[in-house]
Amino acid sequence: MTLGFGEGGNPSVGVRGSSPTAGSAAHTVKSGSSFHEMWRELLPVGRDADSGGYRRYAWTGPDAECRAWFKEQAEGRGLAYEVDRNGNQWAWLGDPAAGDAVVTGSHLDSVPDGGAFDGPLGVVSSFAALDELLRRGARFTKPLAIVNFGDEEGARFGLACVGSRLTSGALTVADAHRLTDGDGVSLPRAMAAAGYDPEAIGPDPERLAKIGAFVELHVEQGRALDLSGDRVGIASAIWPHGRWRFDFRGEANHAGTTRLADRHDPMLSYAETVLAARREAELAGAVATFGKIAVDPNGVNAIPSRVRGWLDSRAADQETLDTVVGGIEKAAREYADAHGVDLDVVRESFTPVVEFDHALRDELGRILGRDTGLTVPVLGTGAGHDAGILSGSIPTAMLFVRNPTGVSHSPAESAAEDDCVAGVDALADVLEGLAC
Amino acid sequence: MTLGFGEGGNPSVGVRGSSPTAGSAAHTVKSGSSFHEMWRELLPVGRDADSGGYRRYAWTGPDAECRAWFKEQAEGRGLAYEVDRNGNQWAWLGDPAAGDAVVTGSHLDSVPDGGAFDGPLGVVSSFAALDELLRRGARFTKPLAIVNFGDEEGARFGLACVGSRLTSGALTVADAHRLTDGDGVSLPRAMAAAGYDPEAIGPDPERLAKIGAFVELHVEQGRALDLSGDRVGIASAIWPHGRWRFDFRGEANHAGTTRLADRHDPMLSYAETVLAARREAELAGAVATFGKIAVDPNGVNAIPSRVRGWLDSRAADQETLDTVVGGIEKAAREYADAHGVDLDVVRESFTPVVEFDHALRDELGRILGRDTGLTVPVLGTGAGHDAGILSGSIPTAMLFVRNPTGVSHSPAESAAEDDCVAGVDALADVLEGLAC
Repeated sequence: MTLGFGEGGNPSVGVRGSSPTAGSAAHTVKSGSSFHEMWRELLPVGRDADSGGYRRYAWTGPDAECRAWFKEQAEGRGLAYEVDRNGNQWAWLGDPAAGDAVVTGSHLDSVPDGGAFDGPLGVVSSFAALDELLRRGARFTKPLAIVNFGDEEGARFGLACVGSRLTSGALTVADAHRLTDGDGVSLPRAMAAAGYDPEAIGPDPERLAKIGAFVELHVEQGRALDLSGDRVGIASAIWPHGRWRFDFRGEANHAGTTRLADRHDPMLSYAETVLAARREAELAGAVATFGKIAVDPNGVNAIPSRVRGWLDSRAADQETLDTVVGGIEKAAREYADAHGVDLDVVRESFTPVVEFDHALRDELGRILGRDTGLTVPVLGTGAGHDAGILSGSIPTAMLFVRNPTGVSHSPAESAAEDDCVAGVDALADVLEGLAC
Repeated sequence: MTLGFGEGGNPSVGVRGSSPTAGSAAHTVKSGSSFHEMWRELLPVGRDADSGGYRRYAWTGPDAECRAWFKEQAEGRGLAYEVDRNGNQWAWLGDPAAGDAVVTGSHLDSVPDGGAFDGPLGVVSSFAALDELLRRGARFTKPLAIVNFGDEEGARFGLACVGSRLTSGALTVADAHRLTDGDGVSLPRAMAAAGYDPEAIGPDPERLAKIGAFVELHVEQGRALDLSGDRVGIASAIWPHGRWRFDFRGEANHAGTTRLADRHDPMLSYAETVLAARREAELAGAVATFGKIAVDPNGVNAIPSRVRGWLDSRAADQETLDTVVGGIEKAAREYADAHGVDLDVVRESFTPVVEFDHALRDELGRILGRDTGLTVPVLGTGAGHDAGILSGSIPTAMLFVRNPTGVSHSPAESAAEDDCVAGVDALADVLEGLAC
């Protein structure tokens, strides 16, 4: 139950014999051995020595290393490797043209100082599940693909799920071309520098039309499975969520010589708004976070001219979310007025509630409960995923693997080895049920 | 009364005839013509096109341009140019070895997006005052020097007045060698990259022993002269001031999936502390500012693992300052405890109250009031200066030039042309009185 459990561990450990814990979703644990090797190969890529967290941002060096690893895994298994027009990587077993394909996978990029599991667990588990199916002698009746969606976290350009958004048409080419990172580098320039063609990007309906189902495995980003005592769960829905930028513009001045009464200090309005966000979220049973800030000029002895704070807020339903964000914005405007500070609020992204395909979800429940008769828990989540973006175009589902602390987007993110193995096995069962 | 009044103006404008406004400190305005030219040359150096503010940080390209300009001014006037062991630039008229030198000058570096006047006005006025004295046919009985102190603002390495602190011994070589900028570049590396020898730095008591008086002219960083209707004033004291770093360490986590109750969000404690600082300062009639922040990982959808906020606080006396900072720290600890967040408070720099040399201050008052019999206003300031650092080693004094809005450390900083000319003239009178 530690980050990087593969380090120093025995890659040939016989996990087949492990038995599920009482109360677990209880698939017989019988996964493949290559999981540990794949895990070990990915562990050092883009890991910051000081924080121990990952910095795998879209179209950077660490991202390229992850991509090279994916290609190697695909080709090493004799899968047909391809990169789609939006830079997403695919590894095919069988002929994609046959249609009704079953696709699994996730992403390999990370948030700033993210953990090892968010994304990679889904990709590694996909390859491991395929290995397991081949070991079982499974006979595929449909094409199967493993996918690595590009730029899922949006750490660099501020918009999450760029790869799947482009593919589904949820992000227009014009809007994508306008994305820039913190250093002013545009998405097209970053893609071109990484050896991809930014002029080729765009919707890919033909590709989506040939997919019958997409199943994404992901480490849980909360403690629901830990509290229920289950290793694996199935997603019900993704809460509606969005990002809003609050630009407080005051007047830069000398911190030592400007009387308090003469100040228009945007840091004060920002601070009051941070606290208002917490209050509004608490009242509504939602979440609201100011985790990113940019201050101009950001000098110790200068009253800021501008403070930009980014609000991330999510709630179980749209009405609650509107109430929370509306309340925060109203409070922020009052604070700004009181300090003689200007305020602009810009909604930078928004994703409505996503209900995963009910038929596919029920099918996953049947497959996973087949051996034991137990009911696999079905849970909602506040986190966005490529599966959520694609759910508007094709039937999608998600499997969650237990996270013992619930910690996510942090170097302290963790999952137990047994739980990861149970996840691989559950995914293998699901793929077998859907594609064989 | 606009920033960059020299732009598009007539450099040969006949300012000799301007008459002082009623209630002004009233020196006959008769300054030299080269002031405008010097001003125009410096105006574009390190100016950001977007903000209109200056980014002249120690040992960077714009700093090198400013230094090249200083050298050119010195050599163009036939002054003996030298750089001392700490990278401060000196331009000498007469033999420094004679001792009892009269020195004037200021600095050319800036805060992030600073104004055009803070620093450069003192250096430009020094050269212009020397021109004026030579025009008057002044006969010098003491050596005179103009100085440009390096890294006054501390914008890059976080510590102000590095050049004068090293020279006076207020900053040890070991501590200076440990300074690093935001990109992790150490002061020695930065100096070496700029062509200076970081191993040569250290105290320079021989140099200071040969100086009888240092007079620094500076744009006022408040509105005292504007309110009293005077063009020029004399400094009485610099408020005690310091910088404290508040490190709030919480737990990084996913902003969408972590229940509010499970969070240890350092941004909340930071926000509460920002507001406490304002309250404490208001109560005590002091100033307290959080103008700089660094957030890890600073991602929109990540609860921060750490928020670092820098407090700048100043008060008229030590006891008041202690009360204010003590109150802020106590409040911050309570907030941190309430959120399960760790807090370290580190005092990064501190400068006790500086009383400028009374005899020199009185002498300046006599010189400047000589022609008119009017009393030149004497005022305290919350801003630190090289003159404050050096006041522990040699007699120092400061002249302030009226700032019509009081705005400082901002692109909106301004001074009226007539006031600047009056400043040059006052400085010329002072130098004549002290050195001739």
